[in-house]
Amino acid sequence: MPVSNSNVPIVSEKLCRFVAGVTWDDLPADVRHAAKRSLLNFFGTAFAGSGDVALNHTVATLLEFVGKGSATMIGRPQHVDPLTAAFVNGAAGNVHDFDDTHLRTVIHPTAPVAPALLALAERQKVSGKDFLLALALGIEATLRIGNAVSPGHYARGWHITATCGVFGAALAAGKVLGLDAGQLNFALGAASAQSSGLVETLGFMAKSIGVGGAARGGLLAALLAQQGLDGPERPLEGPRGFLQVTGEHPNFNDVTGLLGSRWEILNNIHKPYPCGVVLFSVIDACMALLAEDSVSVSDIRSITLYGHPLLAQRADRPNVATGREAQVSAQHAVAATLIFGAAGLAQFSDQAVGDPRVLAFREKVSIVDDMDIEVAGVRMLVESAAGERREFVIDGARGTDARPLSDDEIIDKFLKLSSEGAPQCKQANALIERIWALDQSDDVGAIMALARA
Amino acid sequence: MPVSNSNVPIVSEKLCRFVAGVTWDDLPADVRHAAKRSLLNFFGTAFAGSGDVALNHTVATLLEFVGKGSATMIGRPQHVDPLTAAFVNGAAGNVHDFDDTHLRTVIHPTAPVAPALLALAERQKVSGKDFLLALALGIEATLRIGNAVSPGHYARGWHITATCGVFGAALAAGKVLGLDAGQLNFALGAASAQSSGLVETLGFMAKSIGVGGAARGGLLAALLAQQGLDGPERPLEGPRGFLQVTGEHPNFNDVTGLLGSRWEILNNIHKPYPCGVVLFSVIDACMALLAEDSVSVSDIRSITLYGHPLLAQRADRPNVATGREAQVSAQHAVAATLIFGAAGLAQFSDQAVGDPRVLAFREKVSIVDDMDIEVAGVRMLVESAAGERREFVIDGARGTDARPLSDDEIIDKFLKLSSEGAPQCKQANALIERIWALDQSDDVGAIMALARA
Repeated sequence: MPVSNSNVPIVSEKLCRFVAGVTWDDLPADVRHAAKRSLLNFFGTAFAGSGDVALNHTVATLLEFVGKGSATMIGRPQHVDPLTAAFVNGAAGNVHDFDDTHLRTVIHPTAPVAPALLALAERQKVSGKDFLLALALGIEATLRIGNAVSPGHYARGWHITATCGVFGAALAAGKVLGLDAGQLNFALGAASAQSSGLVETLGFMAKSIGVGGAARGGLLAALLAQQGLDGPERPLEGPRGFLQVTGEHPNFNDVTGLLGSRWEILNNIHKPYPCGVVLFSVIDACMALLAEDSVSVSDIRSITLYGHPLLAQRADRPNVATGREAQVSAQHAVAATLIFGAAGLAQFSDQAVGDPRVLAFREKVSIVDDMDIEVAGVRMLVESAAGERREFVIDGARGTDARPLSDDEIIDKFLKLSSEGAPQCKQANALIERIWALDQSDDVGAIMALARA
Repeated sequence: MPVSNSNVPIVSEKLCRFVAGVTWDDLPADVRHAAKRSLLNFFGTAFAGSGDVALNHTVATLLEFVGKGSATMIGRPQHVDPLTAAFVNGAAGNVHDFDDTHLRTVIHPTAPVAPALLALAERQKVSGKDFLLALALGIEATLRIGNAVSPGHYARGWHITATCGVFGAALAAGKVLGLDAGQLNFALGAASAQSSGLVETLGFMAKSIGVGGAARGGLLAALLAQQGLDGPERPLEGPRGFLQVTGEHPNFNDVTGLLGSRWEILNNIHKPYPCGVVLFSVIDACMALLAEDSVSVSDIRSITLYGHPLLAQRADRPNVATGREAQVSAQHAVAATLIFGAAGLAQFSDQAVGDPRVLAFREKVSIVDDMDIEVAGVRMLVESAAGERREFVIDGARGTDARPLSDDEIIDKFLKLSSEGAPQCKQANALIERIWALDQSDDVGAIMALARA
């Protein structure tokens, strides 16, 4: 049951004062760069996502209602109103769960936040510095609010990317609009009235309606607050506010502790493969195997994965039926990576899961717990038909804190995502260049022409 | 913590099969008539609400993004797209909490449901019978889902009109669109991803964003499902679905028990006064006093209210400062009714609360518990300056189950709400006539011209 105001510290106001006051000069270099990395990764996942059937259905529905405006839906040709663009780009960026990921909360923060800002940047001139500052703040607020309600919030069934993302999107949009702290708090209030998203929808197209709604709802909340629409004094921490209603035992200090000196955005990771984090090391090991001329995949009799107990707990799933389930199946990950020689979206599709070669190979894969192995590591024992044994040991998987993706790896990921599916980005290199130099831009909206189909 | 599927009865599918299969002929006469009463009452509250500052800010914000369409915002001149009309009319209908009310759940069900249907009826030809059937079903679903999570849901902090209304709006819109049971279940899934609204926002303009969003979100969910957007099998009852995530101990049978034979819509009441239900009898007593020539208000020394203990618990608030608080103040209700000779929206405004005559009079009012008096009754003892005593006894208050508003009283309420504020309904009598005869109409959308400013 909620706790009355008297026992609860001030959270919303403190957060809003921080967001209203912080400037580009206050932003550490690594935070600025982290925002650019998340944005580039987002454009890649949004390109790949824009061709997904969930997006096709969503856009087909929304086009009837589109209003005036010159906002871009990534990977599509139409000009639409900013609210619609925010919705569609938010949904596209997250549809494959391949966008940036905050491991403590499992939030994908850029998908709700960046689309709200991009839509604004096509509505009015926004400088690169203002944009990146707002993006970093929106991501930061999303993750901190998520920390405060984790792990109970997601465990109960809240799709945390959507439920928390709407607040980050509201603050980010409000920052660009130049709202003061009081107005930002009203934006949080209007965001709180729209915060939604259930874990039950994961694996279904309905999930994207929650995430798209968070981007749209955040932008709308900021615009309503600018117009004068008021909200409660304590939308986050009040007795019937977001944190107490949706958190089991919310830690209020997670939202406001060390604001401006501790940056949660730096704990964001970028996935090298479109699957659960525990499988990154497994796929790394498969990649190492593929790089060895001396091992032939067709000659493998069995593969044993020695891993931290979490590996088996999360991913010992020999009999998955859909691409969605395959994202947390070690057996599928090994089979698909070795059979197809890659581990991208195509290897975690329904089609790949049903491939007879994959079905046959995954029976050769088993998992053994080994407490001595780190979560981010794995020891893969491969036995050939002739009985030869080879080991592949991964200490720290690509994409995890142990070995974050380099800028070049994020570029490669973007290039693949934006070129291999439909639609394709015709000006990928120009877009990459503009994003790395975004702090030099005086008009972020102009880059959206490069993202249009 | 959520309960796994194996222990949970089938709810979503059963509800959707019922909605898909039921016809106008299956609808009892009292249910049909209840739907008309709710609709007429809704038009009144939406007219009065459309001039509220929350609506002015909302419409000012949304007009920039309005898309094509010929849908009506009640009390306004513009033609807008159906999603925007649903949003604005949903917010307007509920902004004063004067729309129809289901006492067990405190849901105002028509505000989220009717606007989704009215917007559809201006998009395509919808007959009066199809419209009223869908309206009754949408209200019924909203209330049943609300019953299943009450009272824990609202107590925890969920604004139940919005959180449950989105499901009713989705099913109602889906019924008019002719969706089958499977598609209706997808609509529930997309609705579940949008279900939002927090009690913390009550008393602030942000509340209306939740309610408007429920109407818009329900309509959008039905259209997305029609397009093919899929959702989970058990959006309501699944382990991470709406009922288990937002209900403390959900009673699944409340949703599906006796579908088609027990009609929850019949438990909907219509408020005679824009305040808490416990004050209806108090205001009735004041009206009885005003009707007596022998008592002069200026001559009253004290008023004592003898009531069921709930009266004091809910409404013993001698020092309220806003119209919103005044809705649950017995002292204000007595003072304002006797000073102004009426008990409408104007008497529960911030301005009325600050009136020096009201402030002075409310000090004369006190409350005494009397276990022998029914919740819907009151005994009001009035003492004059000269020491004369008069009693006014109310057995069953107007508007409660004991004495529901008659059709004529609902008409009077509509006429007041649609004519006393700004905007005004120029064709109120025509609109009333069309609503009572709605089952004879072959084009419900045509009546919206009468509701335009």
